[in-house]
Amino acid sequence: MPRYIIAFEYLGENFFGSQIQPDKRTVQDELQKALRTLIKNEIKLTLSGRTDAKVSAQYQVAHFDSPIEIKDINRFLYSLNSILPDDLKVFELKEVDPNFHAQKDAKYKHYRYTIENDHVASVFSRGSLFYPFCKLDIERINKALGYLIGHKDFSSFKSKSDNPYNDCIIYFAKAKKEEINGHSFIFIDIVGNRFLYNMVRTIVGEILYIERNSLNPKLMDDVVRAKSRVSAKDVADARGLKLMYVGYDEPINYINNSLKGR
Amino acid sequence: MPRYIIAFEYLGENFFGSQIQPDKRTVQDELQKALRTLIKNEIKLTLSGRTDAKVSAQYQVAHFDSPIEIKDINRFLYSLNSILPDDLKVFELKEVDPNFHAQKDAKYKHYRYTIENDHVASVFSRGSLFYPFCKLDIERINKALGYLIGHKDFSSFKSKSDNPYNDCIIYFAKAKKEEINGHSFIFIDIVGNRFLYNMVRTIVGEILYIERNSLNPKLMDDVVRAKSRVSAKDVADARGLKLMYVGYDEPINYINNSLKGR
Repeated sequence: MPRYIIAFEYLGENFFGSQIQPDKRTVQDELQKALRTLIKNEIKLTLSGRTDAKVSAQYQVAHFDSPIEIKDINRFLYSLNSILPDDLKVFELKEVDPNFHAQKDAKYKHYRYTIENDHVASVFSRGSLFYPFCKLDIERINKALGYLIGHKDFSSFKSKSDNPYNDCIIYFAKAKKEEINGHSFIFIDIVGNRFLYNMVRTIVGEILYIERNSLNPKLMDDVVRAKSRVSAKDVADARGLKLMYVGYDEPINYINNSLKGR
Repeated sequence: MPRYIIAFEYLGENFFGSQIQPDKRTVQDELQKALRTLIKNEIKLTLSGRTDAKVSAQYQVAHFDSPIEIKDINRFLYSLNSILPDDLKVFELKEVDPNFHAQKDAKYKHYRYTIENDHVASVFSRGSLFYPFCKLDIERINKALGYLIGHKDFSSFKSKSDNPYNDCIIYFAKAKKEEINGHSFIFIDIVGNRFLYNMVRTIVGEILYIERNSLNPKLMDDVVRAKSRVSAKDVADARGLKLMYVGYDEPINYINNSLKGR
């Protein structure tokens, strides 16, 4: 059976996360239903990893084995997207080596957290946290984010998990401010080899806690070193989080190309 | 009675246009209701002009006379936006000369039409026309748009209107391509002293007609010169249209600053 990889994007608002759950609307379930309609067989997708309820993805990856060969890829994609709902679209499909594994072979992931740091919420923004409570300072945030870089135990930023392994390598963690349509946005970009449950949202929660209370950004370092969840304060809202990319090559090229200027 | 000016934005999807109509959800009605709640008097808004059903605005302007003086502007804005729905927000309010008139004093308007020219619709885009049918050529489109510049009779692009005066001055008309989140967008920006009913959407409809059929961009010139609505082909969907700005100064500064690089 040929193995295929798909790359897709979804708007998280109306999904109970990516992974299939009984009686819930999930990304995996919508994709599997659409694939079954076209391939006329049950299809089991393996995602690169799960994203939580309301989290969006701009480039998420999955693989599946198909009992039939997909000959006309463009036509298949067109049909697939006609079946899929407006908040979930597949933009890439290709055959891969039968040994390729969307989850195990992933070398890094890029998450972005978007904060709308303005006094009025833009009616056009989707997938961001509206945060009018205090003016955020990019330099201070970048100082705090700097303490995350490297190979560390990130237990402090994990909400719950059966996986006892808490080490992650963070390759990149930076914030950038952008004016879009007259509104101020702050993007926090983090690239790592793996992420613990709720890790990015807890990092952002800690940043907002530091900013709101005008604390020393070095507090982030203390929280990392504490290796205990109780040291971190808040988990930022899932709607601000987006999976930007899943990479199967070395992260350095991606960071140099796609995150240049950040 | 002091006169106030407000600047606001709205997402057009769920509005039957800007101007008040019985039993329809309109921008003017939502604003007047919210103002009445705070000012405790009927408030009559005068908009800079109307926008159609489903058309969005990033910077629309209106004035109103208030029987009470608004003392704490920031607090008033905060309360107003708490009452207003998520798809309509006021970001500016200030007192103006009692002779200021939002409609009569407007010197120019900037409209943008957004086309998503890609094979898969982005789940994150709002307020754009998804157009996968042919690859649009920016140079050809800009050639066609060039024929619009100047003081001309634009009868060919008017759907219907009681106003017999069809002259407009178009100061700026250009298209630009941008890659956003891995999707191809084309923005068509047009600045003019006034616009006839459905004029921008009919211009865009003509551009898509020219592109789809690989016709000579000079056809746009012929259509303008015909001064007859039958010469133009289509009216592009309202969802792609956005009022970007209403100006009360001279257009040249706005074009040099806000449209630099377009």
